[in-house]
Amino acid sequence: MRCVLERLHAKRDAARLSSGYAGQVIDGTSLTLAGAEPQLRADAVRNRALLLEAAARLAARRGAAAITMEAVAAEAGVGKGTVSRRFGDRNGLIQALLDRSESLFQEAFLSGPPPLGPEADAATRLRAFGPALLRHEHADLELYLAAEPSPSRRFAVPARQLRHRHVAVLVRALLPGADADLLAHTLLASVDVVLTDHLVRGHGMPLARVEAGWHDLLDRLLA
Amino acid sequence: MRCVLERLHAKRDAARLSSGYAGQVIDGTSLTLAGAEPQLRADAVRNRALLLEAAARLAARRGAAAITMEAVAAEAGVGKGTVSRRFGDRNGLIQALLDRSESLFQEAFLSGPPPLGPEADAATRLRAFGPALLRHEHADLELYLAAEPSPSRRFAVPARQLRHRHVAVLVRALLPGADADLLAHTLLASVDVVLTDHLVRGHGMPLARVEAGWHDLLDRLLA
Repeated sequence: MRCVLERLHAKRDAARLSSGYAGQVIDGTSLTLAGAEPQLRADAVRNRALLLEAAARLAARRGAAAITMEAVAAEAGVGKGTVSRRFGDRNGLIQALLDRSESLFQEAFLSGPPPLGPEADAATRLRAFGPALLRHEHADLELYLAAEPSPSRRFAVPARQLRHRHVAVLVRALLPGADADLLAHTLLASVDVVLTDHLVRGHGMPLARVEAGWHDLLDRLLA
Repeated sequence: MRCVLERLHAKRDAARLSSGYAGQVIDGTSLTLAGAEPQLRADAVRNRALLLEAAARLAARRGAAAITMEAVAAEAGVGKGTVSRRFGDRNGLIQALLDRSESLFQEAFLSGPPPLGPEADAATRLRAFGPALLRHEHADLELYLAAEPSPSRRFAVPARQLRHRHVAVLVRALLPGADADLLAHTLLASVDVVLTDHLVRGHGMPLARVEAGWHDLLDRLLA
């Protein structure tokens, strides 16, 4: 939760990121990056930012459950219709909130410094990816859980498809004989936010143990 | 879908199975087995079986979407209240339909013949488990997808907990140094019904490729 607010206040906005990476081609496939939204008029951009800051303040103060269309409108001092026109529904609003976080995370693994980014070797990047994803999602845990898609949409979310593609590219480089697409799904499932929330909050498992599990799994696969 | 109907018509009913395995202790933990429902009066048992057969006929004829409380009541020639009193809601009814299938699957891996059952060694049982689970859930795919729990309940379903415990016991026997609990979650996630349906129906991946992926993953882990 705190991260969304910090990131909204950081100077690096999604528009700048998307101008650098929109349409990025990984492994022969063009993927939609977070933050790659259509150009808006200046007042619409300000309006959108105002609403997202209001939603993030609500979330920071009272948790993800407090984010309703009505509450965000009241917090921003606008009518509910303004929020609806901009984000559609509550899920759209939460997705938009996470879009900024997701942009920064995507920047980190696509073009950031080592160990996540492209200057590190594939094994180093893959080892770093799991813990980075875990920390990224658990920093905004309530929002990610609130944004969990329905089963039929679970693997169709662009941000998840990009993560999968990224992991598959690394797996393919490291294990040419493996079914990289399947193995990438398996690796991502091992650090899925719903699973790890179940383990961490439901069963008291330290997040560090889940991170160690990622490293152990890779050690065994890459041995 | 066809399987649920066949299994309902088979002579091996859930009551008999549960009398054999209810309260079974695996790895020090007592688990709820499918079919382990409270004893019912004879007329209630008949009534319940009648309703489940009606639901299975509907599913076989018109798919899982056709299973509504009203349609099952009409098919069985009873009032809707009778269906509600027995199963609560639509999800309860679908869970009850799957309970019979799940009992037979549980019998197969807990006490059935090799390669799934206890006469085979741990590696053989684990290798056989993934493809058996895939075939079990894909035979009643629409019902399993319709029964997909909400994110907060995803890992709390007794049948899933039993599968996890079973896989964890086998992993612990085969890889004493591994985090068996985590690795069991990872293995099960690799053949999750929502993921594999996405791959098979959504992307045209043959189910045999998913099965091969399970074997490849185990080969790499157990190497």
